[in-house]
Amino acid sequence: MRAAFQGELGAFSQQAIAQLLGPKARPIAQPWFDQVFAALASGDVDAAVVPIENTLHGSIHENYDLLLKHDFVITGETSVRIVHNLIAPPGVTFSKVTRIYSHPVALNQCLDFLAAHKNIQREAFYDTAGSVKMVMEQRPPGAAAVAGALAAEIYKARILKRGIEDDRQNYTRFFLLEPAGSKPRTAAGSAKKPWKTSLVFSTRNSPGALFRSLSAIALRDLNITKIESRPLRGKPWEYLFYLDLLGRSSDAAVKYALGHLGELADFLRVLGSYRSA
Amino acid sequence: MRAAFQGELGAFSQQAIAQLLGPKARPIAQPWFDQVFAALASGDVDAAVVPIENTLHGSIHENYDLLLKHDFVITGETSVRIVHNLIAPPGVTFSKVTRIYSHPVALNQCLDFLAAHKNIQREAFYDTAGSVKMVMEQRPPGAAAVAGALAAEIYKARILKRGIEDDRQNYTRFFLLEPAGSKPRTAAGSAKKPWKTSLVFSTRNSPGALFRSLSAIALRDLNITKIESRPLRGKPWEYLFYLDLLGRSSDAAVKYALGHLGELADFLRVLGSYRSA
Repeated sequence: MRAAFQGELGAFSQQAIAQLLGPKARPIAQPWFDQVFAALASGDVDAAVVPIENTLHGSIHENYDLLLKHDFVITGETSVRIVHNLIAPPGVTFSKVTRIYSHPVALNQCLDFLAAHKNIQREAFYDTAGSVKMVMEQRPPGAAAVAGALAAEIYKARILKRGIEDDRQNYTRFFLLEPAGSKPRTAAGSAKKPWKTSLVFSTRNSPGALFRSLSAIALRDLNITKIESRPLRGKPWEYLFYLDLLGRSSDAAVKYALGHLGELADFLRVLGSYRSA
Repeated sequence: MRAAFQGELGAFSQQAIAQLLGPKARPIAQPWFDQVFAALASGDVDAAVVPIENTLHGSIHENYDLLLKHDFVITGETSVRIVHNLIAPPGVTFSKVTRIYSHPVALNQCLDFLAAHKNIQREAFYDTAGSVKMVMEQRPPGAAAVAGALAAEIYKARILKRGIEDDRQNYTRFFLLEPAGSKPRTAAGSAKKPWKTSLVFSTRNSPGALFRSLSAIALRDLNITKIESRPLRGKPWEYLFYLDLLGRSSDAAVKYALGHLGELADFLRVLGSYRSA
């Protein structure tokens, strides 16, 4: 099984692939998200794994947009804790490190570590896993990288310090995507997890339009686990809503709720039903 | 009037300050968001201007967290279109540019430009405005930066190409914050704009809890312009909701709605009423 993801080998998305599809799945790196979706659309890969939201940085609208542009189905979800490690080539000890390379967003999540080691300079790089690849290939003197543990393993580098991030509550949620009509997958350990259904709908923002739309769900006693509005640019007062609820689209209550919501909303697309992470 | 913002002088936040407070406000640069809030808490500045959401990247949860931690009030909002320009020191013409420096997120928003100019290498930097400052100070051969127009003006650099971003629908929404009890401000051109009220509330996620909470708003025919759920880590099934509605907290209908919502929610905080952008 070949699964496309965005980033360099060793990225957190690759860890999500292992969690969703097991160690035998073959991760196929793509530089940009639209290429991840294009690879699945063309049949070059069997699946795609994309981040959809992060506890610190919110929803990744670009991937919701790409989900609406393509006709795939969500067949699983997983959550990866973002752990930043200080990683260096073998032979480089911590006392020798004078510069650390990583994506600025990752470096900004390690401020306490940087404040405690003022002799260490930070250097911006495109990608967390890519910074490990670079320090291994080019070995700049005194250089280390900040990335996930998988990147150290893949590029045969050493972890000098584990978990140097400031905030332990940093998780990214990923979707597993497969061609329309694919059945949900049960990842290891998720067989007893409750079902979740993700959908996108739009309403014109007359007062109470959202309230009426949510009645379709509340009247069936279904639990909402995510709701987010997104204004449609160029269409003032029109909104897209991202909504996740507990239940499977084949459950009677969910089926009735979706029928009712379809009646109330201007647009409705069910993105898939899957075992929750 | 002194207003704190995150970033280097010339950042998009500084443009937001000019839009909200006029050209006489003095922008005070801070490296991190928590220092922006701390500067306002200590009285070092009179106001703070922070980004709260972006059309491509979603809500900036860190700033919502800081809003809840402090006791400030939102006194205005504005929206800045993120325009990326190719900027170089005077004397450097476009044909001489071989490397462009900027924050990787900004570089990733200029992919069409980069694809059309394959002779130009991209170099990651911490900050968009800071990359202009750096190319002006250090003048690396063939170097240009990618940033907003204000950065070119401040560092006396030249704009070689305007608007090299792929997506014109890239806007960031900013809040103006002042000490508790401050009155809303009317920025130039906003005197006739409708009022907006921002609030944060939490519910336990029993089925229908959100629906009941929204009834407090729908029953008063008030228009919701934003809603977003955020799971509370470590408290499974408890959520924070960010909600904006049209109206002012002193309006009778809004007052009743907030009273009713306070009765239904576990927690409610009104962040402020202000003229919408």
